[in-house]
Amino acid sequence: MNKPDSSSQASAKTALVVSAHSADFVWRAGGAIALHTQAGYQVHIVCLSFGERGESAKLWRKGEMTEEKVKASRRQEAIAAAEILGASIEFFDMGDYPLRADKEDLFRLADVYRRVQPHFVLTHSLKDPYNYDHPLATNLAQEARIIAQAEGYKPGEKIVGAPPVYCFEPHQPEQCEWRPDVLLDITPVWDKKYQAIQCMAGQEHLWEYYTRVALQRGVQAKRNIGITAAKEIIYGEGYQSIFPRVTGDLS
Amino acid sequence: MNKPDSSSQASAKTALVVSAHSADFVWRAGGAIALHTQAGYQVHIVCLSFGERGESAKLWRKGEMTEEKVKASRRQEAIAAAEILGASIEFFDMGDYPLRADKEDLFRLADVYRRVQPHFVLTHSLKDPYNYDHPLATNLAQEARIIAQAEGYKPGEKIVGAPPVYCFEPHQPEQCEWRPDVLLDITPVWDKKYQAIQCMAGQEHLWEYYTRVALQRGVQAKRNIGITAAKEIIYGEGYQSIFPRVTGDLS
Amino acid sequence: MNKPDSSSQASAKTALVVSAHSADFVWRAGGAIALHTQAGYQVHIVCLSFGERGESAKLWRKGEMTEEKVKASRRQEAIAAAEILGASIEFFDMGDYPLRADKEDLFRLADVYRRVQPHFVLTHSLKDPYNYDHPLATNLAQEARIIAQAEGYKPGEKIVGAPPVYCFEPHQPEQCEWRPDVLLDITPVWDKKYQAIQCMAGQEHLWEYYTRVALQRGVQAKRNIGITAAKEIIYGEGYQSIFPRVTGDLS
Amino acid sequence: MNKPDSSSQASAKTALVVSAHSADFVWRAGGAIALHTQAGYQVHIVCLSFGERGESAKLWRKGEMTEEKVKASRRQEAIAAAEILGASIEFFDMGDYPLRADKEDLFRLADVYRRVQPHFVLTHSLKDPYNYDHPLATNLAQEARIIAQAEGYKPGEKIVGAPPVYCFEPHQPEQCEWRPDVLLDITPVWDKKYQAIQCMAGQEHLWEYYTRVALQRGVQAKRNIGITAAKEIIYGEGYQSIFPRVTGDLS
Amino acid sequence: MNKPDSSSQASAKTALVVSAHSADFVWRAGGAIALHTQAGYQVHIVCLSFGERGESAKLWRKGEMTEEKVKASRRQEAIAAAEILGASIEFFDMGDYPLRADKEDLFRLADVYRRVQPHFVLTHSLKDPYNYDHPLATNLAQEARIIAQAEGYKPGEKIVGAPPVYCFEPHQPEQCEWRPDVLLDITPVWDKKYQAIQCMAGQEHLWEYYTRVALQRGVQAKRNIGITAAKEIIYGEGYQSIFPRVTGDLS
Amino acid sequence: MNKPDSSSQASAKTALVVSAHSADFVWRAGGAIALHTQAGYQVHIVCLSFGERGESAKLWRKGEMTEEKVKASRRQEAIAAAEILGASIEFFDMGDYPLRADKEDLFRLADVYRRVQPHFVLTHSLKDPYNYDHPLATNLAQEARIIAQAEGYKPGEKIVGAPPVYCFEPHQPEQCEWRPDVLLDITPVWDKKYQAIQCMAGQEHLWEYYTRVALQRGVQAKRNIGITAAKEIIYGEGYQSIFPRVTGDLS
Repeated sequence: MNKPDSSSQASAKTALVVSAHSADFVWRAGGAIALHTQAGYQVHIVCLSFGERGESAKLWRKGEMTEEKVKASRRQEAIAAAEILGASIEFFDMGDYPLRADKEDLFRLADVYRRVQPHFVLTHSLKDPYNYDHPLATNLAQEARIIAQAEGYKPGEKIVGAPPVYCFEPHQPEQCEWRPDVLLDITPVWDKKYQAIQCMAGQEHLWEYYTRVALQRGVQAKRNIGITAAKEIIYGEGYQSIFPRVTGDLS
Repeated sequence: MNKPDSSSQASAKTALVVSAHSADFVWRAGGAIALHTQAGYQVHIVCLSFGERGESAKLWRKGEMTEEKVKASRRQEAIAAAEILGASIEFFDMGDYPLRADKEDLFRLADVYRRVQPHFVLTHSLKDPYNYDHPLATNLAQEARIIAQAEGYKPGEKIVGAPPVYCFEPHQPEQCEWRPDVLLDITPVWDKKYQAIQCMAGQEHLWEYYTRVALQRGVQAKRNIGITAAKEIIYGEGYQSIFPRVTGDLS
Repeated sequence: MNKPDSSSQASAKTALVVSAHSADFVWRAGGAIALHTQAGYQVHIVCLSFGERGESAKLWRKGEMTEEKVKASRRQEAIAAAEILGASIEFFDMGDYPLRADKEDLFRLADVYRRVQPHFVLTHSLKDPYNYDHPLATNLAQEARIIAQAEGYKPGEKIVGAPPVYCFEPHQPEQCEWRPDVLLDITPVWDKKYQAIQCMAGQEHLWEYYTRVALQRGVQAKRNIGITAAKEIIYGEGYQSIFPRVTGDLS
Repeated sequence: MNKPDSSSQASAKTALVVSAHSADFVWRAGGAIALHTQAGYQVHIVCLSFGERGESAKLWRKGEMTEEKVKASRRQEAIAAAEILGASIEFFDMGDYPLRADKEDLFRLADVYRRVQPHFVLTHSLKDPYNYDHPLATNLAQEARIIAQAEGYKPGEKIVGAPPVYCFEPHQPEQCEWRPDVLLDITPVWDKKYQAIQCMAGQEHLWEYYTRVALQRGVQAKRNIGITAAKEIIYGEGYQSIFPRVTGDLS
Repeated sequence: MNKPDSSSQASAKTALVVSAHSADFVWRAGGAIALHTQAGYQVHIVCLSFGERGESAKLWRKGEMTEEKVKASRRQEAIAAAEILGASIEFFDMGDYPLRADKEDLFRLADVYRRVQPHFVLTHSLKDPYNYDHPLATNLAQEARIIAQAEGYKPGEKIVGAPPVYCFEPHQPEQCEWRPDVLLDITPVWDKKYQAIQCMAGQEHLWEYYTRVALQRGVQAKRNIGITAAKEIIYGEGYQSIFPRVTGDLS
Repeated sequence: MNKPDSSSQASAKTALVVSAHSADFVWRAGGAIALHTQAGYQVHIVCLSFGERGESAKLWRKGEMTEEKVKASRRQEAIAAAEILGASIEFFDMGDYPLRADKEDLFRLADVYRRVQPHFVLTHSLKDPYNYDHPLATNLAQEARIIAQAEGYKPGEKIVGAPPVYCFEPHQPEQCEWRPDVLLDITPVWDKKYQAIQCMAGQEHLWEYYTRVALQRGVQAKRNIGITAAKEIIYGEGYQSIFPRVTGDLS
């Protein structure tokens, strides 16, 4: 498990990604992760489960498979992808289909918030009728953030601020009532994202699907620029923010 | 009428404010205007009407009043406020209660978009059951923006990009289904905003109301900051954006 | 045209009903009208059109029919129904399918507001994909209310306050995104309402439909009572309010 | 103008497409049109405008262009595309950016409804903050349908029933609050749709965009099938229905 | 417990109904069940509880009652109703007021999905402020469907596809934010539904309520038919679908 | 613990307040409590937790603090505030950050409903992304109300009716999708509310915040009065009702 190096952490900006299954962060947030690690952020990924039951169909169809084998294979893929994206990663191994969280899981994630002190957080959408683990992960990420803000939780520790939380794109966005209010230009890191995607050997059918998602969001990003910039946007990622943005500049 | 000086315009960033009545921009966007003019933006305000019928109760109660006198008085107040905020201003004098727009009004506003080439746009909320002029102004601002983007409207002119549009705060926000997704820190320019507010002699009952609005939005802004900054936020303005934000940084 | 008697008006409570077609007020608000006239209110009904094109199918099928004949017949039915309900009524004869309102119509209705000084207003739902005249009537009722509140509209006249506006039940409530937040017990006046309904000879197919609506809303009203009252609710009417209710008692 | 042949009409099923600009029906509904004409439907397309101002950027950039030239070119493209799709087409030439409809336009479209007697209707989304002509077309299509249903409009003519209305996919679906509740398998006619798309020489940048849309909706369609059918779905189109579906079978 | 006969299952179409309490399926889905069993479907009903605490007021008022007696009585009624409707039924006996589900309940229901392989699923609405057991049943039905789709849950078993899920009508539809997008014509089987309703001796007050519901939905169904069919619709049931419908025909 | 005196209870009207943390009822509902106790209601407050972890930052920063000390201090403040407001209060001590409720907590609260037989209920908003304990309290209050209505829960006890439930104002109303549909005039009891607010020594930063909230809701209340009453409204509280209001008077 490669955790963020706490010694250098003080100076760097940081981000936290909460992923229900061990591949979600790649399809949905790989661009954001690569973009920010490249800009000097320390990005830390928590995978709540390996998606061993629900998102490993190809592995199970191989036969001679056990849950442990699937989890080991998925872990390998996720570590490889995180490395390409430049992020640290850890696994909570909470089980999937269904994902369930008790208080200990909540506190464990709150402790990660305290340790990482993220400048922003990426997680799933608020609803997903196709996948109940996803909104459960979002809820856990949200509630852990609140716990980590409380002076009375492990008093004396450094509490966290109110980092923005962004919901990444679900598989069928309109059915999840997900509406992107942020379009991130990931053109400069698309190669890395696609390389990370290719680590997901068990879900090859999704490679081209998420390439097309990136191209569509890229076109849409171009359609929403005020004054055309010099650089060209080709690939994008969409995010929906949960909290209002605090700023001093509206352009 | 003091229009933006086109000679210097090329180099500066610009913004456009579309105000249904001649005082709306002060209560609802005075902070944003002052903040950006102070930062070097050229901000231009279009007042579609003077609010002569619907928002000048105190003047009418004086007696011996005519629509022309009310309009003249309101124009004076608006010009004074704009000057304090550092913005240029023009008046379409379309009438209020009800505000109505025909194609000529639409094209006139589209032409302002072409001339100003705004980096962002401020206007009213999408709904307001207390004030039908407000959403009509929003619709006009939105449709004029679309016309100004079209190559086939006055072909050969420089079209506009897709500047973000922000809806400023209506009087009873929840009843207008308005939800701020941007909280602007206007602490550095609060003095100017309050000075501009004081130009609105006819609506003194609103001075303290909008001071409290600014204080509440300020507190809320502090509650939504990721990593606490050095500076203190005291006053804020809330905005709801219509379009997704295109960015390369999520913190 | 029987208008409210202005001499006695000062002392009585009043209400205004804005009905797109000349029968709408019967199906949708007949109970509320009878209940309040019985309680001493002066209730005034404005029918914007006779529903001569769109809601008089049975008449048209008789043959030998002209628009004037249909309108005369519909007028008779509406006057008879209003009389049973104890309300005054007037007809704007603006035409239907489509209903369209210009500024003169708006001012005419604003003048009714000024004259009636209503304690509450009943009109259609905000949306209706089956009937575009209905939401247009709602919008006209809403905007006229705003005009009537403005000191600058016909200065010197007595302006109106901010009477609550209730949307009555559309034909297919869920499809109109209409949700009742008020259930009115109309049991004491059901006989009158059903008598008024029977005036609508041209729409007999709706008599039983709206009897069932009243029974369902009656059952639902019983289900939403805090502490069971002595009296039994059998018939109800549902309303959706547009504005918050101001009160000093929550029970 | 090639209108549906009224002689053969009685026996065939029919559909009506209301397109704000002359290319919209291709990108957004080309698959549905081809699929149904292939199944024996007579599909008739009404283009309210040519999109001469707002959706012909490439033509305008050629220089030496006039509105008439643009319109002629757009008409040619649309006729060619309709022919490939097997549909009849007519042009209302109402102008675009802004599209505006008066009563005559409304009645003209109502008359088309009466003539075509459509079994279903395709048109734009209910909202589109990027394109005000689109929802205006939807509203016109909806209101004309209502007029055409009224016995009192041109009494004696055959009125229309209540054909389902489907909103086709806007360019940025989530921003338009559009949610597909129907996924149409257009795999068997994709070749025709892509051929029709290629008629739109002036908007080549959209060819690949809408190919990707079709592929994404195809994948999503596969994800929403109850019991896997024999045939493979590759291309899809999404639709949002406005009215409830009446059926006798839920599978 | 009469379960579907697995030998004949392969050839027949099947459906699954998940009912929070043992009478819900009758009021809310009796027509759909009878219609489909009559058409050759094997319909299987799972009652999560007997509604022994919350929906058996009349039984409790008899005196000398115990929870076991109430449950036995309710079981009898439900079995009788299911028989009339032609469906098989089983009881999970999970308790009501409150209904609570643990992982074992979830897996038990997932196993039913696997066994039944339903072509469609009927269950409760997504929200119900009057009855918390209802949305809990919906959530359980939804999550069990997802588990049953996962290759990694009991690997080697036949997984299920993505059958459409329809929410049946709650008692106060608008308060539950329930909007029917399917109107099912149950006229041919109304007699059976009413016969099944009459099995619910403990809730006689609901017989006429749900008869009126059926009549209203019948009228509404007639109002939403494209081209009037020969047969007459008198009784209907409304459903709200959760997932998009995949089809090749829009009429 | 000062519970309502059951001997006198029969004759008085009653109300129940369910507060997630021990200070919530003061900021959010202090005016309603004082207003109704002054009018002769017996108002009973249940504090589910003391807010010891999440809402006692100032206490924790004092140092030398333990959870027990914080809870004792918070209990004292709450009792003092309840006394000023004239209400009885009890503490469930369920813990906060996170608040979690099991069946026993649910039944305990249902028993309070049975004992108090409230004419109305006050609790938190349905959503709050800043505070997960708040909506959990709302859900508990709602479900306990349903249990208390069930004949089969502790058969023989007096069940409760269907008292209206009002959601009080969250800290950032728009972010919680909270919209007030009731504005309560609390001017006559403002002094008491502010006195109660001052008991909350640990949260002094909120005193002025909630004074401004009261002033804003007061201004808004004045804006929503039909016919201006003699008395002046200065302070208000906003509420969102969950259930429709049953009434016989619309003014």
